[in-house]
Amino acid sequence: MAMVETHFNLDFARHERLGIGEALLCAGKTVAQIDAILDRVSDRGATMLLTRLASEAHAALAARHRRRLDYEALSRTGFFGAPATGAGTARVAVVAAGTSDLGVAREAVRTLAFNGQAASEIYDVGVAGLWRLTERLPDIVGHDVVVAVAGMDAALVSVLGGLVPGVLIAVPTSTGYGAARGGETALGASLASCAPGVSVVNIDNGYGAACAALRVLRLLDRSGKPRGAT
Amino acid sequence: MAMVETHFNLDFARHERLGIGEALLCAGKTVAQIDAILDRVSDRGATMLLTRLASEAHAALAARHRRRLDYEALSRTGFFGAPATGAGTARVAVVAAGTSDLGVAREAVRTLAFNGQAASEIYDVGVAGLWRLTERLPDIVGHDVVVAVAGMDAALVSVLGGLVPGVLIAVPTSTGYGAARGGETALGASLASCAPGVSVVNIDNGYGAACAALRVLRLLDRSGKPRGAT
Amino acid sequence: MAMVETHFNLDFARHERLGIGEALLCAGKTVAQIDAILDRVSDRGATMLLTRLASEAHAALAARHRRRLDYEALSRTGFFGAPATGAGTARVAVVAAGTSDLGVAREAVRTLAFNGQAASEIYDVGVAGLWRLTERLPDIVGHDVVVAVAGMDAALVSVLGGLVPGVLIAVPTSTGYGAARGGETALGASLASCAPGVSVVNIDNGYGAACAALRVLRLLDRSGKPRGAT
Amino acid sequence: MAMVETHFNLDFARHERLGIGEALLCAGKTVAQIDAILDRVSDRGATMLLTRLASEAHAALAARHRRRLDYEALSRTGFFGAPATGAGTARVAVVAAGTSDLGVAREAVRTLAFNGQAASEIYDVGVAGLWRLTERLPDIVGHDVVVAVAGMDAALVSVLGGLVPGVLIAVPTSTGYGAARGGETALGASLASCAPGVSVVNIDNGYGAACAALRVLRLLDRSGKPRGAT
Amino acid sequence: MAMVETHFNLDFARHERLGIGEALLCAGKTVAQIDAILDRVSDRGATMLLTRLASEAHAALAARHRRRLDYEALSRTGFFGAPATGAGTARVAVVAAGTSDLGVAREAVRTLAFNGQAASEIYDVGVAGLWRLTERLPDIVGHDVVVAVAGMDAALVSVLGGLVPGVLIAVPTSTGYGAARGGETALGASLASCAPGVSVVNIDNGYGAACAALRVLRLLDRSGKPRGAT
Amino acid sequence: MAMVETHFNLDFARHERLGIGEALLCAGKTVAQIDAILDRVSDRGATMLLTRLASEAHAALAARHRRRLDYEALSRTGFFGAPATGAGTARVAVVAAGTSDLGVAREAVRTLAFNGQAASEIYDVGVAGLWRLTERLPDIVGHDVVVAVAGMDAALVSVLGGLVPGVLIAVPTSTGYGAARGGETALGASLASCAPGVSVVNIDNGYGAACAALRVLRLLDRSGKPRGAT
Amino acid sequence: MAMVETHFNLDFARHERLGIGEALLCAGKTVAQIDAILDRVSDRGATMLLTRLASEAHAALAARHRRRLDYEALSRTGFFGAPATGAGTARVAVVAAGTSDLGVAREAVRTLAFNGQAASEIYDVGVAGLWRLTERLPDIVGHDVVVAVAGMDAALVSVLGGLVPGVLIAVPTSTGYGAARGGETALGASLASCAPGVSVVNIDNGYGAACAALRVLRLLDRSGKPRGAT
Amino acid sequence: MAMVETHFNLDFARHERLGIGEALLCAGKTVAQIDAILDRVSDRGATMLLTRLASEAHAALAARHRRRLDYEALSRTGFFGAPATGAGTARVAVVAAGTSDLGVAREAVRTLAFNGQAASEIYDVGVAGLWRLTERLPDIVGHDVVVAVAGMDAALVSVLGGLVPGVLIAVPTSTGYGAARGGETALGASLASCAPGVSVVNIDNGYGAACAALRVLRLLDRSGKPRGAT
Repeated sequence: MAMVETHFNLDFARHERLGIGEALLCAGKTVAQIDAILDRVSDRGATMLLTRLASEAHAALAARHRRRLDYEALSRTGFFGAPATGAGTARVAVVAAGTSDLGVAREAVRTLAFNGQAASEIYDVGVAGLWRLTERLPDIVGHDVVVAVAGMDAALVSVLGGLVPGVLIAVPTSTGYGAARGGETALGASLASCAPGVSVVNIDNGYGAACAALRVLRLLDRSGKPRGAT
Repeated sequence: MAMVETHFNLDFARHERLGIGEALLCAGKTVAQIDAILDRVSDRGATMLLTRLASEAHAALAARHRRRLDYEALSRTGFFGAPATGAGTARVAVVAAGTSDLGVAREAVRTLAFNGQAASEIYDVGVAGLWRLTERLPDIVGHDVVVAVAGMDAALVSVLGGLVPGVLIAVPTSTGYGAARGGETALGASLASCAPGVSVVNIDNGYGAACAALRVLRLLDRSGKPRGAT
Repeated sequence: MAMVETHFNLDFARHERLGIGEALLCAGKTVAQIDAILDRVSDRGATMLLTRLASEAHAALAARHRRRLDYEALSRTGFFGAPATGAGTARVAVVAAGTSDLGVAREAVRTLAFNGQAASEIYDVGVAGLWRLTERLPDIVGHDVVVAVAGMDAALVSVLGGLVPGVLIAVPTSTGYGAARGGETALGASLASCAPGVSVVNIDNGYGAACAALRVLRLLDRSGKPRGAT
Repeated sequence: MAMVETHFNLDFARHERLGIGEALLCAGKTVAQIDAILDRVSDRGATMLLTRLASEAHAALAARHRRRLDYEALSRTGFFGAPATGAGTARVAVVAAGTSDLGVAREAVRTLAFNGQAASEIYDVGVAGLWRLTERLPDIVGHDVVVAVAGMDAALVSVLGGLVPGVLIAVPTSTGYGAARGGETALGASLASCAPGVSVVNIDNGYGAACAALRVLRLLDRSGKPRGAT
Repeated sequence: MAMVETHFNLDFARHERLGIGEALLCAGKTVAQIDAILDRVSDRGATMLLTRLASEAHAALAARHRRRLDYEALSRTGFFGAPATGAGTARVAVVAAGTSDLGVAREAVRTLAFNGQAASEIYDVGVAGLWRLTERLPDIVGHDVVVAVAGMDAALVSVLGGLVPGVLIAVPTSTGYGAARGGETALGASLASCAPGVSVVNIDNGYGAACAALRVLRLLDRSGKPRGAT
Repeated sequence: MAMVETHFNLDFARHERLGIGEALLCAGKTVAQIDAILDRVSDRGATMLLTRLASEAHAALAARHRRRLDYEALSRTGFFGAPATGAGTARVAVVAAGTSDLGVAREAVRTLAFNGQAASEIYDVGVAGLWRLTERLPDIVGHDVVVAVAGMDAALVSVLGGLVPGVLIAVPTSTGYGAARGGETALGASLASCAPGVSVVNIDNGYGAACAALRVLRLLDRSGKPRGAT
Repeated sequence: MAMVETHFNLDFARHERLGIGEALLCAGKTVAQIDAILDRVSDRGATMLLTRLASEAHAALAARHRRRLDYEALSRTGFFGAPATGAGTARVAVVAAGTSDLGVAREAVRTLAFNGQAASEIYDVGVAGLWRLTERLPDIVGHDVVVAVAGMDAALVSVLGGLVPGVLIAVPTSTGYGAARGGETALGASLASCAPGVSVVNIDNGYGAACAALRVLRLLDRSGKPRGAT
Repeated sequence: MAMVETHFNLDFARHERLGIGEALLCAGKTVAQIDAILDRVSDRGATMLLTRLASEAHAALAARHRRRLDYEALSRTGFFGAPATGAGTARVAVVAAGTSDLGVAREAVRTLAFNGQAASEIYDVGVAGLWRLTERLPDIVGHDVVVAVAGMDAALVSVLGGLVPGVLIAVPTSTGYGAARGGETALGASLASCAPGVSVVNIDNGYGAACAALRVLRLLDRSGKPRGAT
């Protein structure tokens, strides 16, 4: 039906404008809509990152698209077409408090990878066992950007906020129950953190944190010499 | 007017029943009501702890009561009559994250003191500067009960929760603004803390935390030999 | 895939540090993650408490793990390996308001049992029929610690708070509908209770209440002579 | 200015229709508006109950009105003109949990009085000291209607709900702080009470509870013989 | 297993105490728990009202119980044993705003019927088509008690509140979406209604409204002569 | 069963009164209730718009009704009977921010169509790529009424509010996650928009926005000469 | 100080673009900022509507501005310069539920007046006394646009929504207490109203409602012949 | 009193660790506490930024401190001691939507200045008059970091998010009323923004946004050559 033609406007110029490749939030879209959009992308010979693509939706996509898609179930992300090639040195550390936060952390890592950026992954370092964090701290502090993924009390964010000199981006997650309130408590705690200069993205928004990191990396790249983890 | 006679029932037996002295929450009561209650207390030759007594209300009390009252403005508490005498060794540590939390922390300390218990006071050890906490940790961990007073992100609670082997009671405070939401974020973070076995009282409820500590100390006292900070 | 290796850091030293055995919150984790963690535990010859393990997840675990697991569906808990052996005398009473609160109450009882502590179970004593509570009161008050499990109005907590001299830990539950707001009302009522010294854990957090009780019992054990329910 | 003439429509027929006299909620109205309304009432030779009339507003009313007004500061109510005459026997008990709830309780009592109904007043019987309630219970249960005024946890409502056979109307109050949430917790707990058949009015709405009681009393009066407290 | 024996305390004396028969809220209970409770009821030769019994749970009950159960799917209620016999004249009107509110309205009607009280049912009279309400008004106003069942804006409650002289009990429902907020808006609007003397029960609580009505009817019955709808 | 007869009152006069045809919100109604209502509509030879009719419910309707129903799954709307015939010129533009908002946008378009009004559809013009909006602006501004459908931040509403001279009706949608809060953020942002004179309907309420537009169009039609998009 | 020069950009072209004159929301601005803006307006020989100008702020304005300002305290609005001249016939009715809603209603009336539009004012017609509304209904329904101003339950909005054929714009107000929640309940009830095609503006936003009405009137004016209230 | 000595631990090493100078949040602290802290700072010969210092508190400070303090009332900030000297080129743009947001915007500018960084200030460019923003866009996009300060709908954030290639930090403000909900709506809209890679700080937290910017600038400085606005 012709109507579909006018239902989406892909923003292929976004990479030029912002340095971040086009991505598609699949949650809230029907499989038919996703298939139609991927057809358009194919027609243009473009690539696209798919986020929040549930396993069931992935399985229901047209075979011609599934074939091109590098899909990871844990992060619900798919690379449609080859990711950008980038420097091998990780300038971003993605740090997660608990095993339940891994899906969100991986969404950040995969978004970075699709845009050509490697990341160091440091997981299960929640502050309830502070030694788990402190023994990994040297691996963390040298990165230009640290993405801190944490739910429930999000105490990891505040502790890192006082120790990490680089850019610190908090991703509150919806793990936990009761007073965790679907991530609202972690979100509030991250925003109210007394550590200075922590910036925050939406609950479970690993994609957004990676984009915020990409904005920083792009600035660094434009500022002259290539940089790695100190 | 006779009506006043029937308007309050002081619970002088509470000390017998629960081991905690009678206290009066002054917020929400008129000065006339407080004066009438103190008259009753005087008549019985009893003592009473006053909490949340604003400076203005304190100044407006009858002179005969003000004279007997040991009042502290910071914690808004008053001792009406002599506090209980107790052992000199502090078995409770009251730990506060920031200077703004001092009023609440002192409410806990004063409630303990009125019930004959000394407390160690360790303040301004918020985790945004983790070294401030770690250098005081040896002073904290040996106590039987630790009362952790923290607002905003309340990250102090979770960090202590993984390090303190004794009973840990969190008092979220209403310090901060915006996403601190009047203490709701600190409350939620304390309840959702991944550190095991943290128990929580109401926002700004230094009095309640002290009472919870008194319940523990009473158990310890009944269990045999006197104890001090290890 | 090697990545899994680095995705969790079990805190086997927690028992030494806090006197509480390692536990695994299974909600929010995939069966594959749980299986991988249990392999690690097996390799170390350690034991572990599993909480919030849904029946479906339990059924999907690797047979080698299911075989070792003492699982209870009502509380969604599993003992992986033998529980600690402890004194037979119950020093903790777990009191629940209604039949719908039993799952949470049993989570507390099972957590205590895994850590070697017996508990008295006193159920369906909500205050709407006050005689149900008062006739069981003598069985309750003698315990060192009382865990009060109640949803909806959580009035049981306040009533017990004025009658129980020991440590009182409230577990609000998510039973009820509408204004019960998934346990938020019970949580708020427990925190705002006018009974002095009630401490509170997260909604439905039977595990946390048991851990808070264990912290108290450990203090009592360290304080000298063994103690039973008076 | 003529405009004022058309700005209010007094509902003098309400007494005929509902059996409840006209009342004026003064909060949110300017003194000039209240004065203009009272002029209208005077002109018709009618009477009116004023509620939520702050002391400052009372003091600023026109002298000609203040002279006719029987004002009580605690409940912020005023009788403008003589109250209805009624039977001396109290068929309503107004029960309040704490001293801070007295203003609201008195608003109910005064509303009943203005409509010719006496009330028994039983105050400071919160369940934290259960004996305070149980020793007054015989004075409470015989009334046709019981108005239960309670803030914070509102546990009084649930306990009464299981013991009082008559009509039970809960008035949650805004006393307390933090998790009391301005009365929302007491409201939620009253609505979620497991005691069957409790009905609830708005936070601090002593006036509304009295009106609900008047609806019941009117039914009883129409149903035949006069009745008193059994 | 013997444990089940102690897991519930049926309150068979409640009818004596409050004039309302024992009822069982089935939501949140397992089928095994319900079956065990019904066995107990059977053993005593008692009867019981079941509420919030989902069709699936009903189908899964033991055949011996299903046989005795008069079940209605729309209201999710079951009569276990014969309902009380009562006067044929309806003294209660149950009025519902829309077709989606019928389940809750029928819960009220069925609860009344189980306790021997007939009710007039007047449905789909929401105020958006005011004529629908006004043409049924004569059928409504003569009842002693009116139960108003309405979701979304609950405007029906306020309109009835100004027209009905009897006791008016509002049941907000969870119908609607978005700003209806699962019934919170209807609940708030019912509580904030400017019509005097409206009393309110929990969202979707048709059972509670019926119990509140039963309290009123019992008073009327005790007050002398039998009464019908005027 | 005869009861069904009295359970709904169709408002066939609504078209006369308000100029908007009768519609049926199917969510919250059983298939049996919908079937019974459609029988009534058939009997009168009337037509009806069905909204929020899930695909499953549609499939379960009686065949005699399904045959007459023009159903669209994306918008969950059905035309029962022929829509009104209207002018071909679109005086309303329905503008949607993203692909996920299409279901709601189509609900508005279909409601307009059922009432004889054409609409211009302009989709996927969210402000994150401002050029997508500005290049379509000339197609938008000439319409008498613009319906802006947007979720998450709803920034589209504010931007249009400053550019569109006609009537602007915002429909916040429940797309997004976390801080999108099921549409509450978009609703709040639309209401708090600094653009003057934006009016707002409920979350996801495409039907309501169309009805608000119909009220405007009817005024225009009554005001004299026929009008098209300028 | 020169900085002030760059701190505001007056939108004098707004009238051309949207047909609504420039207005200044004074709340949140300092008197110095308001004075500076008025100087700018004076310099251009322009006019401006001031809203939410508190009496204290008005009194503190520079005398040169106060002199030009037609200020009304009740609505907190000021006309800076002469209002537009318009047709004498009122095409808008501003309807308010209670006396406490008058300030907001007058803000709407004054905004209309400043833009050259007369309004009919119909006040104190809340539905708790339905006769008050029905006797004024003929004065209301003939207007092209009806602005309904109501707080607490906002039931007036729903009742009017089913009776008024023109454009209906609801302004929820913050009157009331407790469950009125500062206007959130009235806002929710207006949005969830079952009356079709009601559109809603922000709480207390009389200004916004008037602007929405102006958008409609402008359409009508452009559509040909002049129109009055039918 | 000696107690004060132990009540705060100034984090003078923070500059070394994080590159951000020590700052004092004055809200929630007494004047005596602030004076004591400034004495400590003086003793060390250090400098400090004071934030949220109300005019009244400023006026009440000890004269010896007031003398050293460069205070700005609009932003409530004070420089205690000389700010750092920095490059003259502004690499940060602080962009504010409305005049009411100026206090927060200036807090960011002053924090940057105290740490030696100049900022371009671009104010009153809210999107309701899109031309105000677009005509200033060339002045904005070239900066390395853009701090977007906006309340109410915060639409400015999303529009900038799609146009600015640098790092974009949103500061939601508490301006507005009703559905603006004290900044929660602006906060939610900023977090839910569909523009990729926007990061967010707490409501009204101009200080935090500046600190986040400083973290980025420090990275850039470390990455080699000095940089200015492109």
